[in-house]
Amino acid sequence: MDLNADLAEGFGHWELGDDEAMLDVVTSANVACGFHAGDALTMRRVCAYARERGVAVGAQVGYRDLPGFGRRFIAYEHNQLRDELIYQIGALDALARTEGVRVAYVKPHGALYHATVHAEAIVDAVRDLDPKLPVLCSPGSVLATAASDAALKVIFEGFADRGYLPDGSLMPRSKAGAVVTDTEEVVARALLMATEQRVIAFEGTVIDLPVDSICLHGDTPGAVQLGLAVRAALTEAGVPLQRFTTV
Amino acid sequence: MDLNADLAEGFGHWELGDDEAMLDVVTSANVACGFHAGDALTMRRVCAYARERGVAVGAQVGYRDLPGFGRRFIAYEHNQLRDELIYQIGALDALARTEGVRVAYVKPHGALYHATVHAEAIVDAVRDLDPKLPVLCSPGSVLATAASDAALKVIFEGFADRGYLPDGSLMPRSKAGAVVTDTEEVVARALLMATEQRVIAFEGTVIDLPVDSICLHGDTPGAVQLGLAVRAALTEAGVPLQRFTTV
Amino acid sequence: MDLNADLAEGFGHWELGDDEAMLDVVTSANVACGFHAGDALTMRRVCAYARERGVAVGAQVGYRDLPGFGRRFIAYEHNQLRDELIYQIGALDALARTEGVRVAYVKPHGALYHATVHAEAIVDAVRDLDPKLPVLCSPGSVLATAASDAALKVIFEGFADRGYLPDGSLMPRSKAGAVVTDTEEVVARALLMATEQRVIAFEGTVIDLPVDSICLHGDTPGAVQLGLAVRAALTEAGVPLQRFTTV
Amino acid sequence: MDLNADLAEGFGHWELGDDEAMLDVVTSANVACGFHAGDALTMRRVCAYARERGVAVGAQVGYRDLPGFGRRFIAYEHNQLRDELIYQIGALDALARTEGVRVAYVKPHGALYHATVHAEAIVDAVRDLDPKLPVLCSPGSVLATAASDAALKVIFEGFADRGYLPDGSLMPRSKAGAVVTDTEEVVARALLMATEQRVIAFEGTVIDLPVDSICLHGDTPGAVQLGLAVRAALTEAGVPLQRFTTV
Repeated sequence: MDLNADLAEGFGHWELGDDEAMLDVVTSANVACGFHAGDALTMRRVCAYARERGVAVGAQVGYRDLPGFGRRFIAYEHNQLRDELIYQIGALDALARTEGVRVAYVKPHGALYHATVHAEAIVDAVRDLDPKLPVLCSPGSVLATAASDAALKVIFEGFADRGYLPDGSLMPRSKAGAVVTDTEEVVARALLMATEQRVIAFEGTVIDLPVDSICLHGDTPGAVQLGLAVRAALTEAGVPLQRFTTV
Repeated sequence: MDLNADLAEGFGHWELGDDEAMLDVVTSANVACGFHAGDALTMRRVCAYARERGVAVGAQVGYRDLPGFGRRFIAYEHNQLRDELIYQIGALDALARTEGVRVAYVKPHGALYHATVHAEAIVDAVRDLDPKLPVLCSPGSVLATAASDAALKVIFEGFADRGYLPDGSLMPRSKAGAVVTDTEEVVARALLMATEQRVIAFEGTVIDLPVDSICLHGDTPGAVQLGLAVRAALTEAGVPLQRFTTV
Repeated sequence: MDLNADLAEGFGHWELGDDEAMLDVVTSANVACGFHAGDALTMRRVCAYARERGVAVGAQVGYRDLPGFGRRFIAYEHNQLRDELIYQIGALDALARTEGVRVAYVKPHGALYHATVHAEAIVDAVRDLDPKLPVLCSPGSVLATAASDAALKVIFEGFADRGYLPDGSLMPRSKAGAVVTDTEEVVARALLMATEQRVIAFEGTVIDLPVDSICLHGDTPGAVQLGLAVRAALTEAGVPLQRFTTV
Repeated sequence: MDLNADLAEGFGHWELGDDEAMLDVVTSANVACGFHAGDALTMRRVCAYARERGVAVGAQVGYRDLPGFGRRFIAYEHNQLRDELIYQIGALDALARTEGVRVAYVKPHGALYHATVHAEAIVDAVRDLDPKLPVLCSPGSVLATAASDAALKVIFEGFADRGYLPDGSLMPRSKAGAVVTDTEEVVARALLMATEQRVIAFEGTVIDLPVDSICLHGDTPGAVQLGLAVRAALTEAGVPLQRFTTV
């Protein structure tokens, strides 16, 4: 099982989360690429840390929207978005190479992650640049289907701290139970995902959730401790933790 | 002899110069990388045009300053500037690769071109990313020396439409004679540079100016016609026009 | 009848349209406020020109989106958008005051103009800042209704170069006939709007269009000539041209 | 004696310091205006808090440089900088007015605070917009002289946590003793400034420092506690704490 988290999300003087501590938790680091968060100096530093720890570097690509942290849908034209994603991946890869690593996968951030109308732009960007780059996304998502249809490698992730609906989709944040904050419950959910590929959905239905990676949040209070607890529980349960790519 | 010009300098809705026409003039295109000008869509399009015409693609890197078009000195810290330059080169290279070409050289733009205190950041960026990338700059410049000292390949360029001082440096724009606008005179100066590696400096002194490339400006009125005139004159004089790199 | 156009839409080194020439055409200038286009220097200069010519200065407010020129919908939260609009109006008003004028009205730009979900944010911004500021918008629009409901002063505008549907709404740009380019036809439509408050809609239906202002486009080729032709025709027809506000 | 601090320095998703707690410490709030830090929503919220507590709202204006937090010198042209400062002050004043307050003074931020070549642009901005607006700066600074020469009202501030040279200028941050971190020492220095208008400079020289305001830093760890300690000590010593303006 892989553990991933969004990192390098500071910007200039502003910091967010503890990148270095989270790199001791995860096996894959989704590095923000400067459009919704992140700057070149931070990106490079996280790549250096990642190499030291054997953590995979992924391109956390997003809308060009620093004021909105990439969390607002923007009605991009297809070609413009596609090329901005290629731009971001290339920028990160250059910084990664200076530290002896490469971009190992692509994960869209924020509103882009959920924007079904932009799934094709993500797929086209990866296909145009390097069709061997895996895409990290949710099982059953429009992006997962589009990427598969384009013969891209797709890696599925689950969220141990998010509620699911019986159809396998994430509960909207506006609903009660959308976010799980209790450490023990998050750990239990991560264990169930990792060992049985299942999750307890809204109102108790147990559903299948075939995931290769579990996403942790790095910027909430107690994120590092929670991540370490998940990591320890998985290890104790005999689940090998390893990045899903070897680039 | 190589002919280079700054291209892809529009941004979103704003256009600057006629990229496509200038790509029939030059042998090397300095493609703006999005920090002082340029956007991903424009960058990719210029790369596609360049490939069709066999024009070399160079990374025109600059300060992060869209409002100032990269023409204002910014007191960057070394590491931050270095990494932002790597970011820009990598972003362009990714877009270039999707069109079947690669970044063939690096040329700093605007205030960065002249910022002696930032020459080391440029050199470090190229060295960290790819020490085989040539740097395009002025003969006798601090950047030329720094790049040579770092064992980088240095390509010298001359400006057919700019006045020179007897020591080989460019006349400050504040002085009379800093900019040459007469077509015949620009063509004559380009010919002298290309055939004799010399230029007539301020007050008539003829000085040596060993250049591999002549820089044309793409965004002034009549730029395309002037470029075509220079190109025709050089060709007629038997000067072979060819890009200085083969990447 | 008032004539308005979007002005001050350059940004730094990039220019768009001929602000000074258009200020001899219009009676109201929608000055871009720096979020989707415009910079402080340009804004102030246009205010100075406007004062000289007695042209009213309006705040052309938009999404924070220079790369998209404000033409892409952005899923803003209400309070953030409201406050960004206040910010823009205040910034322009300060520059206007230094030139002896004031912001006389507010007109949303681009995607914001059409974003029905954001009409309330526009209304709240104007109401919070200065409920006496008129809002310039299309008759029958959601914004017009929201502004009226909030007891704001509403000014209606028509587009002489755009096609209308029989219900009084603009034809989508994707349809044939959405944009009228023939000078004589644009002039004829402007005349009909100004003298009879009517427009010939799609398939020939003549509909009522009660407008106080006619919007001209300032950034298309021939915009100034077209504007002058409209102005001349209206004057010849005895339609007094005057700004709708006296601030 | 007035106590001032830089507030509203977050940006979008990124936070910096505890604005609300610091507003219980200071009597004047330097509100970042969006060019180097700050966004409209945060600016307005801090204005609302300030009004509730009777704290004066000042415009903390800076270079347009979010990635550099306004701490890097930028070689602006005079008119462009002047107009960007007017833009910022106007934007903040509009948001302040919606909360029932007004901009009561102007204080330049970061590199602009120290940029002697830009003092005239600051002075021209204030003079053009509202010559009654006081400028908050260091005694003996180039800005202080320029503002006085232009008949602007000048308010002097001292830094209780910064070392001074015998000539009254701040010790460069590169020198030992440039920053004072010990709470007792900061409090003692603040008391000396407030009660005797003096400061102990480098190597023990006691010099005059005529200040109307003491600047506290809001974004360092323990900033609020330190500020409360200074406030308590001044109050205990019988120094009345009050804003220097009544706008």
